[in-house]
Amino acid sequence: MATPVAIGVDVGGTKLLAASVTADGTLVDRLRRTTPARDEGRFLDVLTEVILELGVDAPIGVGVAGMISPGGVIRYGPNIGIRDLPLAELLSQRVGHAVTVTNDASAAVLAEQRVGVARGLDDVAMFTLGTGVGGGLVVNGRLVFGAHGFAGELGHVVVAAGGRRCPCGSRGCVEAYASGTAMAAIARERLGDHGATSTLRGEPELTGRVVTEAAEAGDELAQAVLAEAGSWLGVAAASVVNAFDPQIVVVGGGAAPRAAPWVLPAAMQSMQPHLLGADWRQAPALELASLGDDAGVVGAALLATEGSGTSSVRAAGVRGGEP
Amino acid sequence: MATPVAIGVDVGGTKLLAASVTADGTLVDRLRRTTPARDEGRFLDVLTEVILELGVDAPIGVGVAGMISPGGVIRYGPNIGIRDLPLAELLSQRVGHAVTVTNDASAAVLAEQRVGVARGLDDVAMFTLGTGVGGGLVVNGRLVFGAHGFAGELGHVVVAAGGRRCPCGSRGCVEAYASGTAMAAIARERLGDHGATSTLRGEPELTGRVVTEAAEAGDELAQAVLAEAGSWLGVAAASVVNAFDPQIVVVGGGAAPRAAPWVLPAAMQSMQPHLLGADWRQAPALELASLGDDAGVVGAALLATEGSGTSSVRAAGVRGGEP
Repeated sequence: MATPVAIGVDVGGTKLLAASVTADGTLVDRLRRTTPARDEGRFLDVLTEVILELGVDAPIGVGVAGMISPGGVIRYGPNIGIRDLPLAELLSQRVGHAVTVTNDASAAVLAEQRVGVARGLDDVAMFTLGTGVGGGLVVNGRLVFGAHGFAGELGHVVVAAGGRRCPCGSRGCVEAYASGTAMAAIARERLGDHGATSTLRGEPELTGRVVTEAAEAGDELAQAVLAEAGSWLGVAAASVVNAFDPQIVVVGGGAAPRAAPWVLPAAMQSMQPHLLGADWRQAPALELASLGDDAGVVGAALLATEGSGTSSVRAAGVRGGEP
Repeated sequence: MATPVAIGVDVGGTKLLAASVTADGTLVDRLRRTTPARDEGRFLDVLTEVILELGVDAPIGVGVAGMISPGGVIRYGPNIGIRDLPLAELLSQRVGHAVTVTNDASAAVLAEQRVGVARGLDDVAMFTLGTGVGGGLVVNGRLVFGAHGFAGELGHVVVAAGGRRCPCGSRGCVEAYASGTAMAAIARERLGDHGATSTLRGEPELTGRVVTEAAEAGDELAQAVLAEAGSWLGVAAASVVNAFDPQIVVVGGGAAPRAAPWVLPAAMQSMQPHLLGADWRQAPALELASLGDDAGVVGAALLATEGSGTSSVRAAGVRGGEP
């Protein structure tokens, strides 16, 4: 069996996945925990515990659902309820290894670009569909962090100025149209339309998952809702393609695999006419991610192995603590 | 006087500027011509003529209003009426020097990032306001070309899906709201509103320039039109900032300097609330370009000096022809 080269940790709003990862992105041992939200002490304890339990003498990469400043500081993680926590520094002191911290969707796009569906491609955009919409960008083969570490927030590309209210506080972000939460909201509105028939009527708690399950069972309203979400996703994808011309737009995140049969064709159909040169150029591929829930762990681990010598890792934030 | 290190040529839809350029971006000799549109033979002749007239033994960079494929091929230049012309190859055969071809707005952002208002900053986005809206991106200090050379088309970031018709054939692009052409169109609509008073009423030919001149003369409707264009520009800028997190968003192009007093404050005001983390993060600077009409020439020349050893120049397209 190949030797692990790093530990990857993916910290989502509700669950935390940690694993030892080989150079080709294979997970060796894996651990799963509930994310301790709104409690920095417990948060650090659980991270420390899983890293020590995996017990690999290697660097550690952590992907976090939040905005990460250079130096590995969680500036703002609304879903985990943490602000201004210098995670890389505190965690490396505890575990005695270098720790790299990055945004979870940025970790995911790196994984897909290195060992997933976008393998071997230099320019890759990714949207992650879940409770919200995340994103990440690889340009010239390198993850884009931006000036303050906040790049890749493709969920907040605006598709309709003044449109639907987004959880971020703004309006018209693609997250407000294509997240699981948005799918449920759109379904609720359509059920309110006079004469709409659907198995969703009477569902006690309408969520993105419930909508997707109804679509799979053949419910036409649910299918139309997913296609609507997809068509807004395609508009955001077009803006991203016009801005940086990737070979592929990857769609991942927890909601993607099952919603894909309705979301992806609609996204492709709405993206294409919004591309500059639509009448003669070939649209980039728009494809489902291949690493599923492992993408964040794999990408965080791979980023950690790239060492502090690269500016990408410097930007993501490495703190010393040699073993 | 410093020695020129390259020749830069900026080919716009109506005029063509060529100059010998020093390493610090100073123009030494400069020539101006009318762009021969819809005539490949004349187009090549005029370019050859200005380059030979400048007579500098140095590489040549050409910025063109159009979509440029690797290898320096003009794939699509609607304003100059040229398609699928292998400009770098044909021109280097004629002038006996390496020729680099890139998009004109990409050349402009490179110039602003190397020697203009964004000097020393690694991550820069630029919008150019003219007849249309162009754009360019610098990430990690390097111009972004994308997978097919089409990156940086920020004029076609969508601000309102299904909105105003854009000259590109799509709807809702920021170009359809913030170009000179769009400013005139918005003014025409506002003049149609019942009771609107303005010195613009009765203008035989309403253009972006006429609107700007009226704004400068104190016309409130004209000022409101420019502010409206600016507020749409701010939405597009927010999408770009959420995606790339640059230190600065530069606004240039022929229409920018005089429209800036109304466009820039409105753009800043609408950009800020659309940024993820708007309530705590500092918005990037949004500033007027400093190189004016010279930006394209300077950027094209600087790109040419970076040699075929860098992938950016490979992507922009270099053809041999050593002297």
